[in-house]
Parts: sequence; structure tokens; C-alpha cells
Amino acid sequence: MTVLILTAEQDVTADMVVARLHEQGVPMVRLDPADVPGRAVLSADYAHGDFDGYLSVNGHVLSMGGLRSVWVRRPGEPAAHAPEPSPWLTAETRQALFGMLYSAPTRWMNHPRRAEQARHKPWQLRVAHSSGFAVPPTVITTAPRVAQQFVEEYRQVVVKSASGPPPGEPPVALPTTLIGPDADFSGVAAGPALLQQYIPKRADIRLTCIGDRLFGARKTAVAGQVDGRFGETGHAWEPVAVPGRIARSVQEYTAFTELAYAAFDFAEDEEGVWWFLEGNQGGQFGFIELETGQPISDAVALWLSRRRPADRR
Amino acid sequence: MTVLILTAEQDVTADMVVARLHEQGVPMVRLDPADVPGRAVLSADYAHGDFDGYLSVNGHVLSMGGLRSVWVRRPGEPAAHAPEPSPWLTAETRQALFGMLYSAPTRWMNHPRRAEQARHKPWQLRVAHSSGFAVPPTVITTAPRVAQQFVEEYRQVVVKSASGPPPGEPPVALPTTLIGPDADFSGVAAGPALLQQYIPKRADIRLTCIGDRLFGARKTAVAGQVDGRFGETGHAWEPVAVPGRIARSVQEYTAFTELAYAAFDFAEDEEGVWWFLEGNQGGQFGFIELETGQPISDAVALWLSRRRPADRR
Repeated sequence: MTVLILTAEQDVTADMVVARLHEQGVPMVRLDPADVPGRAVLSADYAHGDFDGYLSVNGHVLSMGGLRSVWVRRPGEPAAHAPEPSPWLTAETRQALFGMLYSAPTRWMNHPRRAEQARHKPWQLRVAHSSGFAVPPTVITTAPRVAQQFVEEYRQVVVKSASGPPPGEPPVALPTTLIGPDADFSGVAAGPALLQQYIPKRADIRLTCIGDRLFGARKTAVAGQVDGRFGETGHAWEPVAVPGRIARSVQEYTAFTELAYAAFDFAEDEEGVWWFLEGNQGGQFGFIELETGQPISDAVALWLSRRRPADRR
Repeated sequence: MTVLILTAEQDVTADMVVARLHEQGVPMVRLDPADVPGRAVLSADYAHGDFDGYLSVNGHVLSMGGLRSVWVRRPGEPAAHAPEPSPWLTAETRQALFGMLYSAPTRWMNHPRRAEQARHKPWQLRVAHSSGFAVPPTVITTAPRVAQQFVEEYRQVVVKSASGPPPGEPPVALPTTLIGPDADFSGVAAGPALLQQYIPKRADIRLTCIGDRLFGARKTAVAGQVDGRFGETGHAWEPVAVPGRIARSVQEYTAFTELAYAAFDFAEDEEGVWWFLEGNQGGQFGFIELETGQPISDAVALWLSRRRPADRR
């Protein structure tokens, strides 16, 4: 029974998990979908009354019947490394590769279908609220008047991107930014704005969830710092206990979204409340593990190496 | 309680359903996501302890709490009609629009997450087989030797695209094509090939499924015709009774894939067996309705106008 890791060649976080799987003696195949077809050969056979398929990667043959789990880390676009790449070749290769993998009885971290839906931040806020997290008041709007009223009501408001920074090279940093009621809101009509009540925080919290294992990490904030991802605070990430109430909400959230892996960001306010900011289905964990010493890649490797409970379609 | 139809402006099939909804007096809003932001304004509010949102389209205001159902017909890319379109604006607008819609308690025909997975033809074959359909032996491979062996075993084999014809203008027709064992298989290594045993057929079958309602249609084939979509047969689509065994398989298939709408293609062989070729989650039905007189758009309108059973997240 083999673990399949879908990721690009350069991926230090995947390397950490690969090392753990090696230590545990768990068979493992690493593949970048960008290398299909080419360095990897695939065949799916729906011919003899049932389904069978295999992937052949660098001389390793991985049968779909022997697939233990699939870790979708940072996969490239299918066929991106082909000699003559094209959108159609990518579409055909995606169909062949993922159609075959979806047909296999295996466990996913995370299933692409669930990951895709979980990427929608507005939906995250809704699920977070129903799961019992404290969620800062938020509005997403293309109506300048609504944006202005929101800022007048909450006074201290941050503006964020819903989908992340604009794509392209060189990368653009897009820090969360404080705005006030005298801002110019006319631009809101040209593209949706995500506005959120600003939570003055004494710490950033990162909570990494792998199956039912939780790793809490905390970094003391600098007074007045809005976006903890940019700028130095002089503080490091340290392990922190996860309150029982938060653990229960995480469990509800991951059960509803059907995610095996999620990285949650919270702002801890002066009273110690953890405010839900984001649940990232593909969030990094390497930097947390390095600073806190928490065995996160171990937990990922253990989750991936568990055998599947029963044959599932 | 309002029905939301997401589709492009030019969509005759949607027009047919819109007419039925008007007859039934069901409130309805039609929106092309390409017109957000701009002709449509959206606001989603996660501020006051719960979620609320609205869409304002041509003076009609649609509250998320009053959403009866969403029909995802042929929607354009979000923000595609913006004065300055960009991939980032599309990503932000998709997040805002679909994040808000996913947060609403409503019924979907079809939910984009389920539609996206159901587009994978290899997975369709797997689900079809488990659901009890007769499925022609099929292989999807990048290994020339496997392709050649398949053709040698089954002799009469067709080659198809997995993802449909190549995108771009002018559109390219890509008919299903018969090949023999003396074909040149070397090209298979450059892109996955889908090979399927050829079923000599006496008719094409199109089965349209809307919730639990089934409409079977049959068109007599011309001897030796491989792809019924191209060329004239001199025969028209006629209503046909759906065998009980097929109806049960359809029920299993749509329950497992969680599709409210699907259009199935079968080949009827000389013994009368219906061979599963494809389950299309977004297949057309206008041409079937026009030729057979079956009330398909009526059934779609009825499904959309049903009230939701209970509040769901």
C-alpha cells in the first residue's frame, strides 16, 4: 500500500514528510502532474468488468488498487512540462490523471473537490460562524455605500483580498490594511471589497489541524501591527494549548468541509478571545514546525500512512 | 422565494425554462456572472451574528435568505464584461459571488463542486459501472503498447477525447473515430488516449434526468455510423420508455454524484442493450424537447420552483 504525493519538484515541506515516511518504511511515490505525460506513464483500464489503473514514475509502478492515500500538496498543472504544452493537452491530461485517481478507493488530504470549495473565503466565514468560532464582523460588497456604512459603524476596519494577491511576476505583496471612514469608496464598484472589523490583537495564532490532531502556535504581536505576515515582531512562534471550545469548533468545521488538513489563523485579543480570520486548506506548516519543534510533518506522515478503513468507491 | 438562473445572455434553452417559470408565476432572476460587478451589485454581510446577502440585478433585489434554488446553466466567467477585466478581478469576483451563494441555504442544479467532479469522464465510467450500467471496455493511457494491445484484443475500437474538442476559435469538430490494430500508436505517449470498444448500434439513446424524472429519447442509427452527433441519419428523436433496470442505475448514479440534472448518452446494440457512453452534467435538452415534445423544460422549472425542504448550511 503506497502513499502518492502530488507536488512540484521544489517543495521543502513535502521533503519533511517524505523523510518521515522513509523512516517509517512506508512505500511512497512523489509525482508532479506537470510531468504527465513524459516522466510518468499512466493507464486506466475499465475493460474487464471492473476498474484498474497504474502510474509508472521513475521505474516505480503504483497500482490504483494499492493506493493508500493521496496528498495534494503543491501540484503543477498537468502536462505543463510537455514539449508542446497547450490548454487542451492540460485538460486531457487532467481528465486522465484525476479521473483515474478519483476512481481509486483511497483517502485524500485534501480531495480537490473539497479543497476547491473550501478556498472560498466568504463561505469559510459562514461555516466558521456556524461552527461556533468568534468571527469578526465582515462585509463583501460591490456597493460603495454599503462599504462606507460598514466603516462608519465599526470605525476600525481592515480591507483584505478575498482571493489572495494578484497573480504574476514579480509577486505583489498585499498586506491587510487599516482604513477609516474618510477613505474614497468609489473604487468598490469596480471590484468586490472585503472589509472586516479590526481586532486589536496581542498575538497571532496558527492552529494546524491534521485529521483529529491539533497543533496550536502563538506569536506575540507588536502593538498596532495590522498584518503579522509582514515585518518583524522580535517574537517567535511558540506552542500554545488549544482551548476545548476551539477544538470542538475545529472538529465541526473540518467535518462539515470534509478537510483532512487545514491551517487556521486567529487574532488573539486583549481578553484572550481567538477571532477566526481564515481556514487555509493548503496552508504551510514548515515554518511552524521549525520554530516550535511540534511534530507536524510526523502527524501528516502518520495520517497518510494509515490504511484505508474499507473499500470505498 | 426566488429562482436564480446563472447563464449567458444568449441561451435559448434557458429561455424555455424562463417562460415556464413565468407561466407558473415563480419569481426569477437571471444573471450572467460576467456582468458582476457592473450591471449587478452584490453585498454579503457576515456582521450581525449571522449571514445575509443580496444581489441587485436590473432593479430586482434578491436576498440570499429568499433564494429558492440556483440553476447553473451556462454562466460566463465572473467579471468578464468589466471595463478592465483581469484574472485577479475574475478571482476576486468569483470568491465574492460564489462564496455568498454557497453560504445561502438553497438547492442547486448542479452545485459547481459536484459538476466539476462529474466532468471527469474516467470517473464517470467507474461510477457507471458500480451503478450497474453496461459499460463498453475502455482504456485511458499514455502507453503506446497498452493502446495497441487494447485494439488487438477488441479489434473494433473507437478513439475519443476525454475533455472534449480543443478550445479556441473557430471551433474544431472532433468526432469519435474507428481505428484498427495497424494504426500508429506512437502519439499516445504525447497525450493520453481514450480507447473504447466499438458498439455497433441500431440506435442512439439520450436519457435526460431531472431530479427523479426521466425522459428517454431514441434515434434510429444508420448502419456503420460511428458518431451520431455528425451527419444526417434521416431519423428524428422519438420518445422511448426507460427500462426499469436503467432507471435504477440512473438513480444510483445521480445519488452518488449528487447531481440534480444529468443527460446520459447510450448506444443501443442489436440485442437492445443500452451501453453507457457518457453522463453529461451540463448536457443540452432543447433539441430533444423540440423533436420529441417531451416537457423537459417544464420539469426543470418544476424542480427549480420546489421549496427547499429545510434550512441547510
